[in-house]
Amino acid sequence: MTVEVIAIGGYEEVGKNMTAVKVNDEVIIFDMGIHLDRINIHEDTDIDRMHSLDLIERGVIPDDTLMKDVDGKVKGIIFTHGHLDHIGAVAKLAHRYDAPLIGTPFTTALIENTIKGERKFKVHNPIKSLNPGSKIQLSKNITLEFVQSTHSIPQAVIAVLHTSEGIIVYALDFKFDNHQKISPPPDYNRLKELGRKGVLCLIVETTNAQNYDQVKTYSERVPRVILEDLMKGPMEEDKGMIITTFSSHVERIQAIADIAAKGNREILFLGRSMERYCGLAEKMGLLHLPKNANIYGHPKSVNKALAKADDHPEKYLLVTTGHQGEPDALLPRIAGGRTPYNIKKGDNVIISAPIIPNPTNAANRHILETRLITKGARIYSNAHVSGHAGREDHREFLRMLKPKHIIPAHGELSMLTAYGELAEEEGYRIGKDVHILRNAQAQVFNGE
Amino acid sequence: MTVEVIAIGGYEEVGKNMTAVKVNDEVIIFDMGIHLDRINIHEDTDIDRMHSLDLIERGVIPDDTLMKDVDGKVKGIIFTHGHLDHIGAVAKLAHRYDAPLIGTPFTTALIENTIKGERKFKVHNPIKSLNPGSKIQLSKNITLEFVQSTHSIPQAVIAVLHTSEGIIVYALDFKFDNHQKISPPPDYNRLKELGRKGVLCLIVETTNAQNYDQVKTYSERVPRVILEDLMKGPMEEDKGMIITTFSSHVERIQAIADIAAKGNREILFLGRSMERYCGLAEKMGLLHLPKNANIYGHPKSVNKALAKADDHPEKYLLVTTGHQGEPDALLPRIAGGRTPYNIKKGDNVIISAPIIPNPTNAANRHILETRLITKGARIYSNAHVSGHAGREDHREFLRMLKPKHIIPAHGELSMLTAYGELAEEEGYRIGKDVHILRNAQAQVFNGE
Amino acid sequence: MTVEVIAIGGYEEVGKNMTAVKVNDEVIIFDMGIHLDRINIHEDTDIDRMHSLDLIERGVIPDDTLMKDVDGKVKGIIFTHGHLDHIGAVAKLAHRYDAPLIGTPFTTALIENTIKGERKFKVHNPIKSLNPGSKIQLSKNITLEFVQSTHSIPQAVIAVLHTSEGIIVYALDFKFDNHQKISPPPDYNRLKELGRKGVLCLIVETTNAQNYDQVKTYSERVPRVILEDLMKGPMEEDKGMIITTFSSHVERIQAIADIAAKGNREILFLGRSMERYCGLAEKMGLLHLPKNANIYGHPKSVNKALAKADDHPEKYLLVTTGHQGEPDALLPRIAGGRTPYNIKKGDNVIISAPIIPNPTNAANRHILETRLITKGARIYSNAHVSGHAGREDHREFLRMLKPKHIIPAHGELSMLTAYGELAEEEGYRIGKDVHILRNAQAQVFNGE
Amino acid sequence: MTVEVIAIGGYEEVGKNMTAVKVNDEVIIFDMGIHLDRINIHEDTDIDRMHSLDLIERGVIPDDTLMKDVDGKVKGIIFTHGHLDHIGAVAKLAHRYDAPLIGTPFTTALIENTIKGERKFKVHNPIKSLNPGSKIQLSKNITLEFVQSTHSIPQAVIAVLHTSEGIIVYALDFKFDNHQKISPPPDYNRLKELGRKGVLCLIVETTNAQNYDQVKTYSERVPRVILEDLMKGPMEEDKGMIITTFSSHVERIQAIADIAAKGNREILFLGRSMERYCGLAEKMGLLHLPKNANIYGHPKSVNKALAKADDHPEKYLLVTTGHQGEPDALLPRIAGGRTPYNIKKGDNVIISAPIIPNPTNAANRHILETRLITKGARIYSNAHVSGHAGREDHREFLRMLKPKHIIPAHGELSMLTAYGELAEEEGYRIGKDVHILRNAQAQVFNGE
Repeated sequence: MTVEVIAIGGYEEVGKNMTAVKVNDEVIIFDMGIHLDRINIHEDTDIDRMHSLDLIERGVIPDDTLMKDVDGKVKGIIFTHGHLDHIGAVAKLAHRYDAPLIGTPFTTALIENTIKGERKFKVHNPIKSLNPGSKIQLSKNITLEFVQSTHSIPQAVIAVLHTSEGIIVYALDFKFDNHQKISPPPDYNRLKELGRKGVLCLIVETTNAQNYDQVKTYSERVPRVILEDLMKGPMEEDKGMIITTFSSHVERIQAIADIAAKGNREILFLGRSMERYCGLAEKMGLLHLPKNANIYGHPKSVNKALAKADDHPEKYLLVTTGHQGEPDALLPRIAGGRTPYNIKKGDNVIISAPIIPNPTNAANRHILETRLITKGARIYSNAHVSGHAGREDHREFLRMLKPKHIIPAHGELSMLTAYGELAEEEGYRIGKDVHILRNAQAQVFNGE
Repeated sequence: MTVEVIAIGGYEEVGKNMTAVKVNDEVIIFDMGIHLDRINIHEDTDIDRMHSLDLIERGVIPDDTLMKDVDGKVKGIIFTHGHLDHIGAVAKLAHRYDAPLIGTPFTTALIENTIKGERKFKVHNPIKSLNPGSKIQLSKNITLEFVQSTHSIPQAVIAVLHTSEGIIVYALDFKFDNHQKISPPPDYNRLKELGRKGVLCLIVETTNAQNYDQVKTYSERVPRVILEDLMKGPMEEDKGMIITTFSSHVERIQAIADIAAKGNREILFLGRSMERYCGLAEKMGLLHLPKNANIYGHPKSVNKALAKADDHPEKYLLVTTGHQGEPDALLPRIAGGRTPYNIKKGDNVIISAPIIPNPTNAANRHILETRLITKGARIYSNAHVSGHAGREDHREFLRMLKPKHIIPAHGELSMLTAYGELAEEEGYRIGKDVHILRNAQAQVFNGE
Repeated sequence: MTVEVIAIGGYEEVGKNMTAVKVNDEVIIFDMGIHLDRINIHEDTDIDRMHSLDLIERGVIPDDTLMKDVDGKVKGIIFTHGHLDHIGAVAKLAHRYDAPLIGTPFTTALIENTIKGERKFKVHNPIKSLNPGSKIQLSKNITLEFVQSTHSIPQAVIAVLHTSEGIIVYALDFKFDNHQKISPPPDYNRLKELGRKGVLCLIVETTNAQNYDQVKTYSERVPRVILEDLMKGPMEEDKGMIITTFSSHVERIQAIADIAAKGNREILFLGRSMERYCGLAEKMGLLHLPKNANIYGHPKSVNKALAKADDHPEKYLLVTTGHQGEPDALLPRIAGGRTPYNIKKGDNVIISAPIIPNPTNAANRHILETRLITKGARIYSNAHVSGHAGREDHREFLRMLKPKHIIPAHGELSMLTAYGELAEEEGYRIGKDVHILRNAQAQVFNGE
Repeated sequence: MTVEVIAIGGYEEVGKNMTAVKVNDEVIIFDMGIHLDRINIHEDTDIDRMHSLDLIERGVIPDDTLMKDVDGKVKGIIFTHGHLDHIGAVAKLAHRYDAPLIGTPFTTALIENTIKGERKFKVHNPIKSLNPGSKIQLSKNITLEFVQSTHSIPQAVIAVLHTSEGIIVYALDFKFDNHQKISPPPDYNRLKELGRKGVLCLIVETTNAQNYDQVKTYSERVPRVILEDLMKGPMEEDKGMIITTFSSHVERIQAIADIAAKGNREILFLGRSMERYCGLAEKMGLLHLPKNANIYGHPKSVNKALAKADDHPEKYLLVTTGHQGEPDALLPRIAGGRTPYNIKKGDNVIISAPIIPNPTNAANRHILETRLITKGARIYSNAHVSGHAGREDHREFLRMLKPKHIIPAHGELSMLTAYGELAEEEGYRIGKDVHILRNAQAQVFNGE
């Protein structure tokens, strides 16, 4: 009569998240993500064509080889949202398990795309969609519930396992945002209800656990009012205008589109991943683009659109990929003069994304900005808020759920322990009911 | 036929601003501020009782002794807003000049208070109020105009001198905020009009010139939506609740009051400077406090209010001084157990102010926060935006005004030169039409 | 047949170190230190007169109340060196245990001083001195060995317990310095020998575990050659000259004295703690001051010496306390004009100490330096190296000792875990053989 | 009867130094350097084959086109040392002037190499060597003197022009190092003598003007004692060993060689630029390599040497290029597995160089270190001191020379003004006798 939480990936890094929960003789897997940073280190990594074991060795995907020693039947592989550090390894790992892939509709649609792009393995696991607020029975003893949550991608949920041994909550990744346009607020009432029923174990993200400055993460309403002010001038000027942001951040994209809809510019969403995410979100009714908006993803159509925009830059608003300065993304290619669109003196570029902390991103972004400025562009770079809960949000979350045990996840050791210290402020104790795991370690609890 | 700008104070520090403009044989003085940081260095400084020359020697007030060598008649002493680094030395310096003190009504009311508190000098200069958007003739050849502006105190203006030699603009301090509740937006049209007429010289603040992160300063609308989210939980909890912010930041105070008005707590504005600024703002119709709000400034009445609140902390919202942790301000005294109000486990404290960068503030704030946390309080510290224009706002300002000459002011050398580099991006050149002055240096231009 | 390591203090902070090791039914205690930073937070702390329980509540001394539940006889209380975070609480805690206090001769002399200063408790524990390289039998089954080590105070040792269950090494604090003048190099051969015998458990300091810049701590030879260059000019100039450094850092004091001995200035060691440490070190033959040196500790004699020096500053070198800018230490009092010695234009001040990271120290040091500079002094502030092992030194240490278990100590959680990650690079694993403890937690091992 | 100093390059950046001094109708040019960082921004820059005007447009070399408007005869082009930011543009610019190129023997030898590598222009200017401490007459009225100095490359000098209008000192770049093995100490006596004669103008480097931590730059004796400790362990271990440092830093190379000479490893100096600088330095008798040392620069011979070392890594010490992680330098290629030499577990790598601050270097170095560590290497990264004077050295320098006018150079505006503030502490005043120039601006003085 035990529950075992097995840390597979994401417990020593931000990336390649994967966790298994064993309840008696049944196993539930959460997430199969990739670790994008590691690809910079090994220049010749071609994910789509490489074998799992090679990718495991390079630290690009979780090392799930330990699962062969776990004595239990896998009943489901659950994805809480569609970011690559959560779903990116699905095509490399899922086929080894005889279990369905489960996520919200937007998430499963992204998983299907990932599987289609795979060149090495064939993945035949059944795929099931579950709406936020719904439940599905995974086995006689285990029921999965998706609690409505908010993050920086649509249809992110907190996953809850109702088991014979108790309730297990898997909360990677989330923020408490009461003002999103696409997503309803998190279901605080349900969370409190779960807290009252009694939560055996909480597995929880720690992205902002070390951020002692912004202790309560701002709502998306904040960048909305900021973008309104930032975009106003450039919309009216007689110059080129580009915004770059996360393709998957449909809420932000929607905000940009709504503001731009009031202007006279034609909005061009450009870039392969812009098409992948926004196209899908539009098709699924999550994103509502104004009439003056179009999405182009194929290189040829992107170039055609850019050539058209280059003739009358004052008539277009370009929304592009490349906010980290990645050399092959669209904005860096524009800045490097490798497209038909030319940056001219007085053009306005809004970067609605932080520099994801990593020396390579810092260098790429520096080169991007220097090139844009050299060509005469004006850059506005401060219109972003995090998609992850802050310390005071986490405190709130703990007060709602009152879990018996806590397993911090989704980060380097320093992040997990910073979360642990926060939990201690709420009466927990590291080593007693807060468990710091390393990849490949497991924690066993006794249920009731 | 010349114009001379004389840097008296604030060109080598943030603080003690004072500038003189000589147009032919007439002189206009802008600001007479103090330098608060210097007081920490000399422990025994008692401003109210000290002589100007001693305060000058300690760097606490501007060294205006050079004015005795300036051959011209002073026609007016102009104050653009009521912060201490702009008006704080008026009682020490103004009496030496046979000229009126001019500011907006809120500013002159604060000047009158300062003069009343003075113990060393008698100040008999006439005081004249001028509304934003109005003009006053200072001499046959010089007319003063106050252009509507926004900052972090009510009725801040950009001062414009219309002279026989050209237009001179004095823009210390300002931000471009289109969404304040108390103040209308800056009068962009008038600024552009001045630009079209031709501005001979712009004297301009540089507070954020080195801030390459937040390049366009957020509107006060941003902290408003943030405070709404931050205050919601604490308002509803059954615990003590304190907010601390700048007493003179009436716009912020109004936002806090408006949000709190919807709740059931009685709002107590506490502390001597809280009474000074908010009491005045309320009397002048700038601040509108809800019925459930009261202001207490006298130590006895503060203590009485605190004792009452201590009995039923869940019924009160305290708005206090002390956001920098200044040992003798109210919140630090509460945290140190030196008042009848006791911090208890679960109390919520919102600090709506940054740490003003200075090692002493950092230390005081650290001690304040540690004491609060030790007593069980929960601290929310990120609900602030700057009151000063960002780099892209300054760029906009330059494009509106198109001044022939620029004199960056209100900062250390590194800030003035950072502004100079920004101006160079707009076609100016340091050493040619951007003039970096040190305190006591002057720059001469020829008018038309 | 078990060994239990009990974390009492210093596992959640830098300060108040105390650890107990229980071997079967016998207990050995290591260190009884204080936490100096906590005193700033509670203004009214008067250590000498306060009761242990009050000091425990304020976090100033280790909370050893848990020891009453430890079922075993205390056979010795061991101190590895004389810094206050290791010996400072001895007068508050030792009397509760019926066991001898053991340290090297310099350490026990300092312990005796501490006990003499105590106003609240009477301490009658026997005090035993043990030389580096020597052993003493603590009970039938436990022998204590002091292995020669180096740190920033004389006669620091690594303590080794030879027990029936295995060897336990307690290594707080140390650096690997092969070029000290007072201390021989660490006994690497003995450490390797212990490694070959087999070490059951290593308890180890982690001060620099998060310092990824200076990965191998420089020898004291480095500040020696730096000081030689720094002191040369000021020694020869016709101006006042002051050096401030750690009073207990006798090695550094010796270096300063040796360099100064070649000049013509009379050397004055000034300040109460300067007298305490240097006087003792000189008496014990550890410090050899040149003929032209004198130590003054009593306020009156300090003032007299200062008055003398003030008449002919070019004839004296003052070596003072106050490197952190502590308001009541000597150098800050000189800078504040509160002594008969006046800083004059051109005087040279060498600060041979880092700013110990803490906002209060940063503020105090800022005020100190500003005052000195305002009076015309020239400050040289970079002549220091750490007294603690760097990451690569720790790696070396692990390769020598090859302990079966590791318990990182002497730091905040982030430091302990940073050490843990280093140990992982050497083949250990956190949670398996690296044990992260919180204060009041214990780790049990089975011996052979 | 005037002197004019014309800022051509290096007054708005660290790089592409070039200054002209016009004395009546004669002109002396100092330095013709390149700006390496700019090459990263424009990917397709091929310096050897590009035309000056293109390189000027890209900001890679100084824009000397303004010299066509300078009415005067160029009498000499003077190079104070052989770093690329001082000599790197000689082959692009020198041929336009009918004047000799003058430097110390080591510098002129490097200039000759640069000219040989040029593919676009033919450079026929006569080249003259002048020893430190010597003089040469450049015209009837102008004599050049090279004052012995120290820096991080051999034979760096301070250039002094004795003119009819006064003495002009050009001090780019220097440090005050009294303990170099290859270079004698700076000639302080001569500097003081010049100060007594009266210096009209000092043009001075400002690299460390903003470094308030290391205020007096350490001597090369410091890395020598550090390297001795760092290298000791690795020399004796049975593992591979690599050191990387600046190829042109012959003093450091000599220190490494001297320490390694006492061991049993064969020393391999590897890489094209290692051969260029060390080969030359050895030929000129500046570098004395031990018998067990060899230099290989040609790719084939480097690979051959690496293959040999790979068989018995414990027998070799590799000294390589690539300390900044530059992708095509040797150490990064070794780390990336692109050479016959394989990094193995336990290998030791010493990086005797800082990260030159720039986002690209930070990223490259991060990738380099991650790859090395992934392969099991141990990295020691802290064995470096700056080659540039610190703030207190500059203060000393000003006290020696007592120049009437100061022109800070070799840096961004913030560095020049930080130097200006230092000069103000010594009684100068920015805008009066400290002149901050932008590229293409000139300052005119009247001589006696």
